[in-house]
Amino acid sequence: MTQPPVPDFIEGYGPVKHFTGAFAHIGLATRAAVKVCSARPGIGKVLPSIRAAIRACGLRDGATISFHHHLRNGDDVLRAVMAEIASLGLRDIRVAASSVFPVHAPLAGHIESGVVTGLATAYLSGPVAEAVARGFLQRPLVMQTHGGRARAIEAGDIHIDVAFVAAPTADIYGNLNGVGGKSACGTLGYPMVDVKYADRVVAITDCLVPYPACPIDITQDDVDFVVEVPSIGDPRQIVSGTTRVTDKPEGLKIAATAADVVEASGLLVDGFSFQTGAGGVSLAVAACLRERMAAKRITGSFAAGGITGTLVEMFEAGLFRSLFNVQCFDLKAVESYRRDAAHQAMSASMYANPHNRGAVVNLLDVMILGAAEVDLDFNVNVTLGSSGVIIGGSGGHSDTAAGAKLALVTTQLAARHHPKIVDCVASVTTPGETIDAVVTEEGVAVNPRRADLRDRLASAGLPLCTIEELRSKSQRRAGGDPSPPRAGGGRIVAVVEYRDGTVIDVVRASA
Amino acid sequence: MTQPPVPDFIEGYGPVKHFTGAFAHIGLATRAAVKVCSARPGIGKVLPSIRAAIRACGLRDGATISFHHHLRNGDDVLRAVMAEIASLGLRDIRVAASSVFPVHAPLAGHIESGVVTGLATAYLSGPVAEAVARGFLQRPLVMQTHGGRARAIEAGDIHIDVAFVAAPTADIYGNLNGVGGKSACGTLGYPMVDVKYADRVVAITDCLVPYPACPIDITQDDVDFVVEVPSIGDPRQIVSGTTRVTDKPEGLKIAATAADVVEASGLLVDGFSFQTGAGGVSLAVAACLRERMAAKRITGSFAAGGITGTLVEMFEAGLFRSLFNVQCFDLKAVESYRRDAAHQAMSASMYANPHNRGAVVNLLDVMILGAAEVDLDFNVNVTLGSSGVIIGGSGGHSDTAAGAKLALVTTQLAARHHPKIVDCVASVTTPGETIDAVVTEEGVAVNPRRADLRDRLASAGLPLCTIEELRSKSQRRAGGDPSPPRAGGGRIVAVVEYRDGTVIDVVRASA
Repeated sequence: MTQPPVPDFIEGYGPVKHFTGAFAHIGLATRAAVKVCSARPGIGKVLPSIRAAIRACGLRDGATISFHHHLRNGDDVLRAVMAEIASLGLRDIRVAASSVFPVHAPLAGHIESGVVTGLATAYLSGPVAEAVARGFLQRPLVMQTHGGRARAIEAGDIHIDVAFVAAPTADIYGNLNGVGGKSACGTLGYPMVDVKYADRVVAITDCLVPYPACPIDITQDDVDFVVEVPSIGDPRQIVSGTTRVTDKPEGLKIAATAADVVEASGLLVDGFSFQTGAGGVSLAVAACLRERMAAKRITGSFAAGGITGTLVEMFEAGLFRSLFNVQCFDLKAVESYRRDAAHQAMSASMYANPHNRGAVVNLLDVMILGAAEVDLDFNVNVTLGSSGVIIGGSGGHSDTAAGAKLALVTTQLAARHHPKIVDCVASVTTPGETIDAVVTEEGVAVNPRRADLRDRLASAGLPLCTIEELRSKSQRRAGGDPSPPRAGGGRIVAVVEYRDGTVIDVVRASA
Repeated sequence: MTQPPVPDFIEGYGPVKHFTGAFAHIGLATRAAVKVCSARPGIGKVLPSIRAAIRACGLRDGATISFHHHLRNGDDVLRAVMAEIASLGLRDIRVAASSVFPVHAPLAGHIESGVVTGLATAYLSGPVAEAVARGFLQRPLVMQTHGGRARAIEAGDIHIDVAFVAAPTADIYGNLNGVGGKSACGTLGYPMVDVKYADRVVAITDCLVPYPACPIDITQDDVDFVVEVPSIGDPRQIVSGTTRVTDKPEGLKIAATAADVVEASGLLVDGFSFQTGAGGVSLAVAACLRERMAAKRITGSFAAGGITGTLVEMFEAGLFRSLFNVQCFDLKAVESYRRDAAHQAMSASMYANPHNRGAVVNLLDVMILGAAEVDLDFNVNVTLGSSGVIIGGSGGHSDTAAGAKLALVTTQLAARHHPKIVDCVASVTTPGETIDAVVTEEGVAVNPRRADLRDRLASAGLPLCTIEELRSKSQRRAGGDPSPPRAGGGRIVAVVEYRDGTVIDVVRASA
């Protein structure tokens, strides 16, 4: 089923810069000028309420405000701020949130009521995703990558009027950290970018400590106001500890094959660097690599990303010299970050922005990626589910795929009678040119661009096949189901931006 | 002797914004847009030589380059870079150096030859100061404060084409720190600003370590190129360990009186914060306060500044909860910074920039300042010596005076037959409105703006007098010598910028 092309102009979004290749727009970039309300000595920053802070910032209809997601599905700051904004009668607010989770359900109501008319994020799931799919958001949702969000903010493509920072620990002059307090979440890698470019920055904390709040992750020179509230979130949901290695035989088989691919690639040597998501199969790959690194006495240089307890254990076992951490996924990661100077925070820009002087993803040897779908061009969809609802988005998917020497998609061939290797993905999140191989329970398909890799894997006796063969196996497993029909010529409800700010795809409402 | 007024336009400097009060220009400020050459994955940053880096940066005649002074009088990076620039035949270079020391003598030669035609710095002593006084620099020297330099860079008033960072430790992708390597100097607070705003950033190191160079002070996303050289400086001169408490009776008497003033001011309570220079009298004040804090069981919040061993000892004795460190003055400070998370680095902007959301100086309770001269309006000169040669400059003098609740000048009444309390200072570095009191061996003069302080000191029985009385005592001590004649209508050789970028004074060549 042929899709209408991405138009040159999208109502509510503006002119489109079309995606023309993963590395077509690396080069001279510009960071935007920033307005700062400089502080007079003797004037304090603590305000009595979120409402007072919103007023002090002069927030108006049409403004853009930003949030971050280090408190994950335990975050209560977005809800609390939006409730005040709604009760103040503000309208037409655009929200730039690094991710949106089910806990942010009240945002769906503000979208329906017109308080919020725009949303940009790198990851979206739950009731807000459903509200977008139903067409309630007036402007198209802008889906970014983690690095692309940092880039957009630095470039001024997104101009933040007020950044709200959920701060597990703060002092009266706006030094912030995420390692202290009852809502400790670890690093604060996402708002590190927002606070540098927003007109106004408000820190909201449930742990106001005596000055200064060392060790400092975000410094006072970037924070205008501090508000103390009883709670910024539910600690049980902040670091939920749900990251577990898969115990399913097919998942374990895929993980073992992925580890074989890594080993055969020649990259598993001293200085090895690695990133993986927090999914069960990804963690199983990490577990396999752990054994092999230990057996071969390999010391890696770093593991990066959202940091999990699995990676912390590898670090503490001496398998990596350091960890680069944009966000903690569990308590073990928080504790390690608090304790160890070689467990290093990184901003979202340092992590993955394609328009700085060299992001951490650029030095990744191996990245283990998931997929909702992969197509014959190796394009990956982690944006759109088969029912047409948004199921997530890139997060760091496209960023790490572009940076890593070996970007491996690990996936089962089918899930719930849906094939995962398809002719054409329902939505392109990550371009196939940045994917090196797809690892399934019935074989490994190497991107034809990587003949060198194919030869290495063949020499190592890995079960190679073509992506077309995987597609056929995938359809058989799913019961012969072809790719789900993609929504046709309906209104564009989401614009999928590649990390460089070009538009790689759009999501249309069902016609 | 009446001075000609500061003109509205200065040849080689441009239009003058006149100083109109220490806090007249706090408010909305703008940080400049920045051009970045973004990095393509797979491209390295290490270049074989300084010359190669200069070429890779495309440095041209008329460009502005920047340096920092954490290696102090042991720095060899400025010399090495300037030698290559000269040998490449480049001309009309403007140098923005955070400070210039005697070790930078070769810069005087480049000024005489026209390779360097402009210089901006916060502190200048030695042969380069002499070359400026002799009128060799084509454009007027621009003298800034530490915070004013950060402000100027952020505002784009100084646009840096290439920032050169002397990095005691670096990795191949440009992560830098100052705690490792044979040239360890501690924090890197000054270039933290430069690297954010320069078109190009070159790190020069004599210790290239395996990636990543944790703990990281300057991150890879801000560094374009890395050059390894045999030596970046002379470790014996980097942290010279020359900071010693005075043993002269008059100095000790001044210090004890200053401590009495602090105690009488009511500020010496829990949460107390403090900064002092590294001079002998200043350190003696710190020693007095240490005893009193211990006796009264006071826990201060922080000590700040260039950090000395004296302050580290107070921190380790539990008298301060934290240290804010823009630069280490000695090895004890380096070791403490390496070891302790509550010994926190701060950028020059976080330290003292008047145009951010709140610098550390804004929260200082007490600042102990030196002076070459103080006049009847409490204006302080630390710029110009009696012979008309530049003897230093503000550094953080004006910044801390503006921020601190109690800015105390400690000075003897006379030095080498020159009075130090005069009718009118030879050059205004720090405006009198930001000085609260002058402490001498024969009494304390409180600024008439601080009647509240005068009353407190009077109640405490401190030896108060007027600034006019101090002036008379000072002249008697010096042997009746009046203020030295100030140079007349000669060419302007230096422009003294206040921290907000306004011009507070100029230095003229002898007519």
